Amino acid sequence: MPDETNSTSSADSTTAADPTVAPTPVTVLGLGAMGQAIAGAFLKAGHPTTVWNRSAGKGEDLVARGATRAATAADAVRAGELVVVCVVDYDASQAILEPLAADLSGRVLVNVTSDSPERARAAAKWAAGHGIAYLDGAVMIPTVMVGTPEALLFYSGDEAAYKKHEALLKSLGGQSAYVGADHGLAAVYDLSMLDFFWTSMAGLVHGYALAAKDGVPASALAPFLQSHISLLAVLVGETAKDVDAGVYPGEEGNLAMELEGVEHILHAAELRGLDVSVLRGVRDVAKRAVDLGHGADSWTATVEGVRNPGA
Amino acid sequence: MPDETNSTSSADSTTAADPTVAPTPVTVLGLGAMGQAIAGAFLKAGHPTTVWNRSAGKGEDLVARGATRAATAADAVRAGELVVVCVVDYDASQAILEPLAADLSGRVLVNVTSDSPERARAAAKWAAGHGIAYLDGAVMIPTVMVGTPEALLFYSGDEAAYKKHEALLKSLGGQSAYVGADHGLAAVYDLSMLDFFWTSMAGLVHGYALAAKDGVPASALAPFLQSHISLLAVLVGETAKDVDAGVYPGEEGNLAMELEGVEHILHAAELRGLDVSVLRGVRDVAKRAVDLGHGADSWTATVEGVRNPGA
Repeated sequence: MPDETNSTSSADSTTAADPTVAPTPVTVLGLGAMGQAIAGAFLKAGHPTTVWNRSAGKGEDLVARGATRAATAADAVRAGELVVVCVVDYDASQAILEPLAADLSGRVLVNVTSDSPERARAAAKWAAGHGIAYLDGAVMIPTVMVGTPEALLFYSGDEAAYKKHEALLKSLGGQSAYVGADHGLAAVYDLSMLDFFWTSMAGLVHGYALAAKDGVPASALAPFLQSHISLLAVLVGETAKDVDAGVYPGEEGNLAMELEGVEHILHAAELRGLDVSVLRGVRDVAKRAVDLGHGADSWTATVEGVRNPGA
Repeated sequence: MPDETNSTSSADSTTAADPTVAPTPVTVLGLGAMGQAIAGAFLKAGHPTTVWNRSAGKGEDLVARGATRAATAADAVRAGELVVVCVVDYDASQAILEPLAADLSGRVLVNVTSDSPERARAAAKWAAGHGIAYLDGAVMIPTVMVGTPEALLFYSGDEAAYKKHEALLKSLGGQSAYVGADHGLAAVYDLSMLDFFWTSMAGLVHGYALAAKDGVPASALAPFLQSHISLLAVLVGETAKDVDAGVYPGEEGNLAMELEGVEHILHAAELRGLDVSVLRGVRDVAKRAVDLGHGADSWTATVEGVRNPGA
C-alpha cells in the first residue's frame, strides 16, 4: 500500500476529465461540506453524478455544474453504479441506507462517513447480507484538497470492487490507498494517524503556551521547531521498525534520561500555572515503561507503557 | 533570532579550523558524552582546549587529539578565556563552580547543563555577584551532531559575551542562536520545543500501538504519516500566528468537530485496552476550550484550555 502512495502515475487520474477513465455514473448521498467536495471532484473528472441530501437547499452549485439532483434517496442510488455516502456518523448512514438495501444490491457502496472500525465492520456485515459490494473509506484531507493528486483517502473491504473502480476513486484523491479486506482497516488507519496528529498538535500548542509564560512569542519559537519536525520525519520510520520488532535499542539517549527531561518540562509548566494533563500522561506512560525495565531502551519503549495501562 | 537560524554564512564557522576564527583558549568542565563532544568540536575548530572531569578516566581520546588535561578544576578555568560547563544538572554545576568564583571572574562562563529557567536565572545572579560574564546554553541536538553546520544551540544572558565569542560558539553548532538577555530564555526555548517533541513522540508511539491492535504493522502506517508531518510543518507557523494574536479563526474544521474526532480515537484505544492518559489529557484540554466558548474556533484555541487548568 505504501507503494501506491508514492506512485506518480496514479496522480494523473485526479486531473479533470482524464480520458483514460471511462465515465461511470456515480451517486453521492449527503451534501455536507465533504459530500459536496466529493461530488464536485467526480463532476470535474467527467463522471455523471447524481446527488441527494436529506434536507433541501444544499448542493445548488453542484446542480449548476451538471449534477443531477434525485428526488429520493432510492432514485439517487438507482442512478449510480457506485454510491458514496458521506454523513455525520454511522447512525446517520445506516438510517439512510437500510431502507435502500434492495436498490443497493449489486452496486458498489462506499461509506466515507467517519466512525469506528467496529461500526464499519457491522455495516459490512449488513451489506454482505444484501449482496452489496461494500468499501469503507476514510478521507484524510480537508475538503479543499479533495480531488487533488496529493489527497489521501483510505479504502478497505471488497478488494474486487476497489480494483474495478480504482481510477474512479482516485479522482477523489491521487494518493488513495486500499489497505485491506477487513472493512475496519480504513478507520484503523484514520484513527491511528489522527492519534499522532492531534496529540502532536496538543504538544505544539502547549509548547507555545509554555514559552509565552516567559515572554517568548510563539512566532519566535516557530522557526526553530522545523528542526524537530524534520527529526520526526526521520523517526516515524525508525520508530515503526522498532515497534514492529518489539526491541527498542537505546543509543546515546535513553528512556530514563528522557523521562527526566519530561519531568523538567512538566515541572516548569506546572510552576507557570498551565494545564499539564497531557504531559502527565506522557510522563506516566514513560515512567511505566521504565518501571517495566526499559530505562536503558529508547523512547520507542514507551509503547510497552501504552500496552500496559496503569491500575 | 530566527534569521540567524537560517543564515548560511554562519554555518561556515563550524567546519574544521576556520581561518577567520582566531584560536581562543577554551575550557570544558565535565566530560560526559556531551562535554566530550563539545571539547572535540572546539579542538576540531583549532581552539586550544583544556579539559577537566571530576572523576578520572574520561576524555583520553581528547587528550590524544591535543587537549590539555588540567589537574584541578581551578587550573582548567585559569587556562580558558571561555569556560563551558556541562554536567548532569545545576546542583552539580554550582557544586563545581562556586569554589571557582575568583578564578572565573573576568572570564566568560557558558553553562550548557540542562535545567530549569529558574535555576539558570539563579546561577546568573550568582555569576553577576562575582564579575563573571555568564551565558546559559541549551544544546538541542544529540552529541553526534555537535560541531556540524546543522546543529542548534540556544544561548541567553550576557549579550556582549555572546557577540564577542559568537564565531567560537558557532564551532559547536552552525545554527546557534542568541535568544535574549534573560538568562532563563535558553532553557525556556529548550523546554518549549521538547514539550512539542516528546508529546509528538508519545502520540506517534500511541498511534502505532493502536494500529497494531487491529493487525496493522507500524511500518505499514509510517509512510502515510509523512503527509501529517508535512502538515505540521505548515501548521507550526500558522498556529504561532494565531496563538500570538489570541484569535483562533475556525475554518472548515472547528474545535467542536475535532473534539469529537479525539473522542473517537480515545474510545477506540480504550476499547482495545491501551493506556489513554495522554489522549484523555488532549480531550480534556480541548473540551475545556469548547466549554470556554471556543467550539467554532480552530484547534489552536485549545491554548485557552491549557491556560485555564481544570479544578
